[in-house]
Amino acid sequence: MDNLSMLTDLYELSMANGYRQTIPEEEGVFDVFFRKVPDDGSFVICAGLQQVVENLHDFHFDKQDIDYLRSLGLFQDNFLDYLAHFHFDCQVSAIPEGTPVFSREPLLTIRGPLLQAQLFETLILNIMNHQSLIATKARRITYAAGDRPVMEFGARRAQGASSAVYGARAAVIGGCTSTSNVLAAQKFGIPAAGTMAHAWIEAFPDELSAFEKWAEVYPDNAALLVDTYDVLKSGVPNAIKVFKELKQNGHQPVGIRIDSGDITQLARGARKQLDDAGLPEVKITASNALDEHVVMSLLNEGAPLDNFGIGENLITSASSPVLSGVYKLAAVSEGDQLIPKIKVSASREKVTLPGLKQAYRLYHHGTKQAFADVIALKDEKLGDQLDVVKANPLATKRDQFIKDFDAVPLQEAVLDGDNLKADLPDVFAIQAHSKKMLAEIPSATKRLVNPDEFPVYVTHKLDQMQEQLLEKQGK
Amino acid sequence: MDNLSMLTDLYELSMANGYRQTIPEEEGVFDVFFRKVPDDGSFVICAGLQQVVENLHDFHFDKQDIDYLRSLGLFQDNFLDYLAHFHFDCQVSAIPEGTPVFSREPLLTIRGPLLQAQLFETLILNIMNHQSLIATKARRITYAAGDRPVMEFGARRAQGASSAVYGARAAVIGGCTSTSNVLAAQKFGIPAAGTMAHAWIEAFPDELSAFEKWAEVYPDNAALLVDTYDVLKSGVPNAIKVFKELKQNGHQPVGIRIDSGDITQLARGARKQLDDAGLPEVKITASNALDEHVVMSLLNEGAPLDNFGIGENLITSASSPVLSGVYKLAAVSEGDQLIPKIKVSASREKVTLPGLKQAYRLYHHGTKQAFADVIALKDEKLGDQLDVVKANPLATKRDQFIKDFDAVPLQEAVLDGDNLKADLPDVFAIQAHSKKMLAEIPSATKRLVNPDEFPVYVTHKLDQMQEQLLEKQGK
Repeated sequence: MDNLSMLTDLYELSMANGYRQTIPEEEGVFDVFFRKVPDDGSFVICAGLQQVVENLHDFHFDKQDIDYLRSLGLFQDNFLDYLAHFHFDCQVSAIPEGTPVFSREPLLTIRGPLLQAQLFETLILNIMNHQSLIATKARRITYAAGDRPVMEFGARRAQGASSAVYGARAAVIGGCTSTSNVLAAQKFGIPAAGTMAHAWIEAFPDELSAFEKWAEVYPDNAALLVDTYDVLKSGVPNAIKVFKELKQNGHQPVGIRIDSGDITQLARGARKQLDDAGLPEVKITASNALDEHVVMSLLNEGAPLDNFGIGENLITSASSPVLSGVYKLAAVSEGDQLIPKIKVSASREKVTLPGLKQAYRLYHHGTKQAFADVIALKDEKLGDQLDVVKANPLATKRDQFIKDFDAVPLQEAVLDGDNLKADLPDVFAIQAHSKKMLAEIPSATKRLVNPDEFPVYVTHKLDQMQEQLLEKQGK
Repeated sequence: MDNLSMLTDLYELSMANGYRQTIPEEEGVFDVFFRKVPDDGSFVICAGLQQVVENLHDFHFDKQDIDYLRSLGLFQDNFLDYLAHFHFDCQVSAIPEGTPVFSREPLLTIRGPLLQAQLFETLILNIMNHQSLIATKARRITYAAGDRPVMEFGARRAQGASSAVYGARAAVIGGCTSTSNVLAAQKFGIPAAGTMAHAWIEAFPDELSAFEKWAEVYPDNAALLVDTYDVLKSGVPNAIKVFKELKQNGHQPVGIRIDSGDITQLARGARKQLDDAGLPEVKITASNALDEHVVMSLLNEGAPLDNFGIGENLITSASSPVLSGVYKLAAVSEGDQLIPKIKVSASREKVTLPGLKQAYRLYHHGTKQAFADVIALKDEKLGDQLDVVKANPLATKRDQFIKDFDAVPLQEAVLDGDNLKADLPDVFAIQAHSKKMLAEIPSATKRLVNPDEFPVYVTHKLDQMQEQLLEKQGK
């Protein structure tokens, strides 16, 4: 990957230079959070932290970058020197990748010199918004597929190389089992998947000889694309001939793939032909313009499908292609003290949560059943019972009293200057963590359409702090 | 950028290895084209060719890549050796970037060893689908904005780093004048744009002192964000104080930016206050969740806006986030001869156009007014008059007779093995080419909603060839 330190909006550099000239000693705290869940779901699967950490750890500007920035005529020499000798001096804490997270929760918090923390906004949001979006979409699709493997197939329709490569990573975090993308497979240790395209069939005189040649080259990887001419009249019968010969020679046929037409009807016909031919072990993969709703309705119709290959609708989250995570100032330093800050707005809903915070998942006491999250000030002790307020200012009956819970903190320390404080697990370990955390939230919350709300509260103290700051602003 | 030779779907490698073992001498021709235009528009602005050329020119596999591929246990040694000593041996021709192109036209054609041309499918589609998508969206937005500058502001909501960087490039091809993305600005010579975020305002005790500090640091770049507290009661009055002082000291204030609320009403109020204060030269920029429809309706209401900053809806083409370009085999070699090929399909609409082709733009004779495109076989002479057939098989009245035209070929030679055959103009030269080509197509075709169809024909000869191949397949 490129050095992405220059992947920043110009105004981050303009503000940082401005801080350097005016309040160079100021410290600040920024939170990453989102308000709206893609596809009207109830939660987001957070992802991208590993790449955030790698990029922050490696944050630097080369001579050519400094020369370029100097050429803009905007920045003072003391600031350009600061960038040329950049040293990462912030503390980062974050919710581990794969965790289902909710609106307004601080996914990542960064504390350090304002001048420096400001510089990371664009890069952090670019990475986390993208990967969390795709992990969330993958979770929806793999949820629809039940225990059937879902392969990520989207590289050719992705929005550029990073969208393909890091999108494949995020897809596995969200539950996919493999990817067709060789670079992603290599980079992240994901199984590489895929068989042939129609071009293979067309390159030979007829379908049968194309299948036969494939089986010669890949006797133990014979997955055949059966829809070039006619699935049930040509593709499956030809595949059966080849599979039988493979079996006679001691090989195990893999499967067929259907990429067009009425998948349910074609899969039923293919399943019957395969079973009648004594090939019940041959799997059927569907891969044509699928998404969570098509997958669910195919399975609902009883289509005998074993695997799904999902392309553009997964890799771009096509039905909801933006996660609008933001990076907002929550506090600045004044001497040793942190002064909490809010962003006010004409829309009450958009007022931010002030101060240095922690989010907790609340479980019914002694169980693994989560029933709510609560956002508290970091130095608050939660105690045994809590007065809380719904985090969404537009909610009704905002005040609640809760007791008999176990509270588990969600954010953990990740970076302290040069020191890495947390494990960065591999992508399948993250997937396993995600599945564990998903199992702990109510099933009504996980529904694809009209999911039940999982309540997110703020503590009474945090709510009061926000109210006081609002009043101070005359709102 | 990474070496993207490994950015491929596994099956491209599996097929290439298969060709190596079965028909290693075979040559092939592949076309890149699309069927459906994003946002129900009538055309796509093609983009991405420069990155395709750079990546093909640099196509290679490092030792670690070969080791990884060997570890998959799928590929024969002769194929891995071929990759380890890869030499690009294909001919590429393409329609220049920035050209408005239509459904079914070959945007890029590649001819060479089948084994090799197959390998580029995923990478070429990844690049061209992405950049063409964003250039097309940018064209829609800049069309709506008329002659008002549009700044690309989307990096934080892009789908990863490439989406941000190459998306910014594509946005300029589609008419944007600048980008907030510093890496893209540096890489492609695009003006970098942007001012401050709300964080700057919040880092100071009050809005006025935040503005004053900004003006101290950037006396000649004072563009102020006026919506942190209250645009008309606080933001604009404070900005006016600062602007007046700047003018007294011989500086030129730049503008204000409004990022929330009712833009039309706020811009009207702000314009009046600025004009009343003797600051008619101060520009107003709007930047909140805009797209082509919002821009058009703001301007339709008469909102006094001078610039637009467009984020997520541009950089992800949010309302239509996929361009489904495909890469299809059009011919294979048999000795010296090219044998045309089609991909048949249950859907007549999806049958591909066979053979080595060229697309022409047809102008009314002696004018710059284009009225149609025609796709012909490359070795056809068009002559003075033409029997043509609508390229869309589902169209009615498909047969047409046309005369009194000038035909201008759209594809040009780009690469012949190691030799670069075409200029790769810089991004603003591409933008200029795009504007010229857009000026030549009818305005009804450029409408954002319900555009008129621009006819795309195939020659009688090409149509006959497709029909004969279909018959041969028994369709």
